[in-house]
Amino acid sequence: MLLAKATQTSALDSRLTADDAELLRQMLRAWGDLDADLLYKGSARGGHLGDEILQAGQPRPPIDLSELLRSEFWQFQMEFAEGWEQHPTMMQPVGGMDRIVKGFESRLGGVIVRKAPVTRIVDGDRKVRVRYRHNGAEHEITADFCINCAPAYLVKDIRNNFSRAYRDALAVVHPGKLFKIAFQGRRRFWEEDDRIYGGISWTDQPIMQLWYPAHGFHKAKGILLGSYTWDPEQGEAWGRLRPEQRLAAAIAQGEKLHPGYGELVEKGISIAWGKVPYQMGCSPEFTPEDRARHFPTLQTPNQRHYLVGDQMSFVSGWQEGAVRSAHAAVEHIHHRVASGD
Amino acid sequence: MLLAKATQTSALDSRLTADDAELLRQMLRAWGDLDADLLYKGSARGGHLGDEILQAGQPRPPIDLSELLRSEFWQFQMEFAEGWEQHPTMMQPVGGMDRIVKGFESRLGGVIVRKAPVTRIVDGDRKVRVRYRHNGAEHEITADFCINCAPAYLVKDIRNNFSRAYRDALAVVHPGKLFKIAFQGRRRFWEEDDRIYGGISWTDQPIMQLWYPAHGFHKAKGILLGSYTWDPEQGEAWGRLRPEQRLAAAIAQGEKLHPGYGELVEKGISIAWGKVPYQMGCSPEFTPEDRARHFPTLQTPNQRHYLVGDQMSFVSGWQEGAVRSAHAAVEHIHHRVASGD
Repeated sequence: MLLAKATQTSALDSRLTADDAELLRQMLRAWGDLDADLLYKGSARGGHLGDEILQAGQPRPPIDLSELLRSEFWQFQMEFAEGWEQHPTMMQPVGGMDRIVKGFESRLGGVIVRKAPVTRIVDGDRKVRVRYRHNGAEHEITADFCINCAPAYLVKDIRNNFSRAYRDALAVVHPGKLFKIAFQGRRRFWEEDDRIYGGISWTDQPIMQLWYPAHGFHKAKGILLGSYTWDPEQGEAWGRLRPEQRLAAAIAQGEKLHPGYGELVEKGISIAWGKVPYQMGCSPEFTPEDRARHFPTLQTPNQRHYLVGDQMSFVSGWQEGAVRSAHAAVEHIHHRVASGD
Repeated sequence: MLLAKATQTSALDSRLTADDAELLRQMLRAWGDLDADLLYKGSARGGHLGDEILQAGQPRPPIDLSELLRSEFWQFQMEFAEGWEQHPTMMQPVGGMDRIVKGFESRLGGVIVRKAPVTRIVDGDRKVRVRYRHNGAEHEITADFCINCAPAYLVKDIRNNFSRAYRDALAVVHPGKLFKIAFQGRRRFWEEDDRIYGGISWTDQPIMQLWYPAHGFHKAKGILLGSYTWDPEQGEAWGRLRPEQRLAAAIAQGEKLHPGYGELVEKGISIAWGKVPYQMGCSPEFTPEDRARHFPTLQTPNQRHYLVGDQMSFVSGWQEGAVRSAHAAVEHIHHRVASGD
């Protein structure tokens, strides 16, 4: 309303033709659901009070503008779903994101060696050697190429013979300290009591948000995300708590969104990626300056060593970034081999 | 940007505190994805030109404001999904909306008599008699109550003994002239070529809109809605065309949205509800004045005759309105019978 009124002042007249200014007022009236006097008196778009099917729905009264402005919701949550990496259509693998990993795993058979910390990488112009510990013994593999998806901030501390520029680039990548909690609902109270079907509830408490499952509607139980924060300080604070303390804190905070929450959820589990051995974080980050200066260096192999993973994309934390960076490495190797390298 | 600038003029200062005016500017900057000078220079929210995963995405250039204002999109399409009867979460019966009807039908067994136009309704204080034609013969049913879901604009022309007020009320309801076309895609070109997964494409042509299925992603074929208009004049114009003319016109118009459309779709079917015998329209409507004056009369039975259906709700055209009006009638009858009527 204020904005539509503002279009009537001379401030805009110098920037718009009279026709466009009138169209702008009409657009604001349609967009803002304003009355003929350009006043906002509530909108059916916000739902109705009471029955709206057999009786004419009564719109909810407008929320005070000052109160809206003082909420933090517009700082990013309001626009969150419009972010380019959040746009629908978003597909979900049936069974969860790790079905993608499990799918690769099942086709790779016995190729994967687990619990094998790498201790040394010797890159060369014909071969690359990787040394690792496994079951108490030292092993070494010599290969034509190494495609390495370990986080740069761990790779930098593995003994290596990379170029100075490559090592400088590895050193600027720092770990995201993301944190998540999941609970099982003893029943799907968010659907049964609150008619919530998927989506997010935001809060300014440390849990930051609750996510509701977009599948399994009306089944007996379901898993909801009881916290997901990507704030590094909050992530580290959660990580310092013991697992049972984390669940207790998340339940106390969730109580404000869902009264009786503690009785409604069970079997909580938490993960503070900063505490996961040999991962020590997730969703690696560059500052914009470091990204501009060092990312191209890491996008180029150090002789026969390729760094891949979501860290080598502009969508850190997303599987698509990991897959695309692997495709790029494979394509690069293909061209090298095809040209006799 | 213009709006954020407008907040800097004195027009708003008299309506907002200085703190709130500053918050409003910050909110507009976040909402509008403006730069530090409150200028809009394009937004990643609109997607990027070219790769955005392995390279920094390049935002699309802003569309000229005057061009945006001159589009009709903001008149209602932009706000359409915010309408209270369009809000997510919207459930879909597997197999289509008529699965609801089929579900009732399968449980009702042989109770339903089809092809039985009603010729007379004699309402009374103890019984109600309904006369109808079936297989060339006249039949009459005498019952305790009649729950009638025929459209009011047809009921009014059935011989009856309703009260004057009830007949006056029936007479104000007029039929919606909605029109739809469906095509089968020879392949799911909207997904394969355009990466469209469900949703609507709007056009100012007579077809008004295309709908894409929100299910069956990546299957071999799929059904899309090739037109859906609720404009009465357009609906009647479509109805005057022969079925094959309607499909040809819809294909010519769809061509502007999907080049090669005519070769991409097959097996078109159209329905102009205004031409359906014994229905002669759908989604019955009241003017606001008629609704205020006559709807309460129709919500009350005429002795033992209850009018139901989506027409007896504030969501004409939606099954929920029909179901809720039936529930209300059944509840009313329950109380009458329980109190000895």
